[in-house]
Amino acid sequence: MTEHVHTYAGNPLERGEALRRDEDHIRRLQQSAEARFLPFLNLKVAVNETDLDWQDRKILEQPNSQVIFLGMDESESPLFAVHLQTPPENQEFADCRLLASQLSLPNTGILAQARAQLDWHQRNPFCAQCGGVTHSERGGQIRRCQQCEKHIFPRTDGVAIMLIVDEVGGDRCLLGKGHGRMARANFYSCLAGFIDQGESLEEAVRREVWEEAGIRVGPVQYHSSQPWPFPSQLMIGCHGIALHKDINFDPVEMSHVDWFSRSEVNRALAGDHPTLNVPGPMAIAHHLIRTWADGEIEL
Amino acid sequence: MTEHVHTYAGNPLERGEALRRDEDHIRRLQQSAEARFLPFLNLKVAVNETDLDWQDRKILEQPNSQVIFLGMDESESPLFAVHLQTPPENQEFADCRLLASQLSLPNTGILAQARAQLDWHQRNPFCAQCGGVTHSERGGQIRRCQQCEKHIFPRTDGVAIMLIVDEVGGDRCLLGKGHGRMARANFYSCLAGFIDQGESLEEAVRREVWEEAGIRVGPVQYHSSQPWPFPSQLMIGCHGIALHKDINFDPVEMSHVDWFSRSEVNRALAGDHPTLNVPGPMAIAHHLIRTWADGEIEL
Repeated sequence: MTEHVHTYAGNPLERGEALRRDEDHIRRLQQSAEARFLPFLNLKVAVNETDLDWQDRKILEQPNSQVIFLGMDESESPLFAVHLQTPPENQEFADCRLLASQLSLPNTGILAQARAQLDWHQRNPFCAQCGGVTHSERGGQIRRCQQCEKHIFPRTDGVAIMLIVDEVGGDRCLLGKGHGRMARANFYSCLAGFIDQGESLEEAVRREVWEEAGIRVGPVQYHSSQPWPFPSQLMIGCHGIALHKDINFDPVEMSHVDWFSRSEVNRALAGDHPTLNVPGPMAIAHHLIRTWADGEIEL
Repeated sequence: MTEHVHTYAGNPLERGEALRRDEDHIRRLQQSAEARFLPFLNLKVAVNETDLDWQDRKILEQPNSQVIFLGMDESESPLFAVHLQTPPENQEFADCRLLASQLSLPNTGILAQARAQLDWHQRNPFCAQCGGVTHSERGGQIRRCQQCEKHIFPRTDGVAIMLIVDEVGGDRCLLGKGHGRMARANFYSCLAGFIDQGESLEEAVRREVWEEAGIRVGPVQYHSSQPWPFPSQLMIGCHGIALHKDINFDPVEMSHVDWFSRSEVNRALAGDHPTLNVPGPMAIAHHLIRTWADGEIEL
């Protein structure tokens, strides 16, 4: 099977698991002339035109709340991300979601790592176990509670996202429309939801489709996965086959769920459908739909 | 492809996503005569001989620190788990890992959900964002900070676990031995590690094998997943193919990593190898090894 490498994957850095055991070494890397720094402000990233605006160690003179070690690049330069507290003069920052389509795949991967990790540090100044203050260690790979000494590891939330077809070899797939802005744009996508504690990926697929659409799903097949740094999901994409066709959707979660034919979704994927909008190629949902619609995978 | 349903999966309960929106309804279910409760003490579960010891609402008279709603069983009875603070008289409790091999598959799934969720509540009395006190809501599905009102969702950590073979159609697989007790028992298993922020499943497989064994991996293929409630992992099992054979393992993480032939691991899986020990059928690692060794899957 071909491996699908999605936007926000393809990160080429050597994250330096072993290096991180020596805090002094990380500090020396950070002070070296080769070190390059990617500044963030309010989780927006520094840009120069439409590319990441890497800077040298002078950026550390700006007030900042966090510096994390991302890893070593292919030329052995140590790369860091910096969370600035005030905007430097004449520096532009871009939204990480809007920017991604302009970047090379490896750069989307670096951006995903940097944004997810900086955000995690911002959201975890306290220990959930004892309420104590936590500090960053190992170049930002973990935090440690200063009161109970607990190690706190970054959190990545697994999300099951699935395209369900109406029968074996079927010609229709199940898409849903949320509420609010998405509903007004007539934007339909794959169903999706967080994987619960004590369930497998396949069980999460079946539970979510049952809860959101009232459809029981039989066979489930893994397709690919996509890191999604808003804030830090791992989208795990699957295809599945429905056991029946009558939909009973949850109006709290969804404004509408329906079956769409292969020809309809092919037009929507090409941006050529008069009313139906579906996710663009940045999202794994697009590829779950496309690989089924164009016959790349058979279900 | 056949779906592998592992120990700690197979949970048949309807978790009641929609029900949980009404806290009063959950309270009424908890007080009903049909409600059944699974007591835990220090994360050990109440047992009667070798089965789960479900009890009626009288158990709530015992001092407890947490009651969570697990869901509705097939006969529409609401099931709960209770975290007791003191041991009731004449009640036996068992370790959830040792007990699992005695239970039916559906019961291992219920046990996994209950243990992981109760443990998560015990470990999250405070808000990591503001340090405020958190309370359980939606029958234990979430906690909410009483200070900043943030919703806190249960955490499930994705772990990539992989069996790597030495070449396409190869006859040897890569297994590693940790330190301590496992090393003394000559216990070898699949390599594994937490999925980082900003990486796909396949990238996590390649990074872990590189970090732990110094082996570069080419194609990666998803196999199956297993919830592992110690404390709350989702083990995502893959097979992969090495790009070279020379090992350079990390002595901090591993005491030894080596290639093992199909005939050797087949003997070990059958418990018939004089020196080599491998995981038993409770663990996804066993099935990653077995499905390759017995030719069920081809790589």
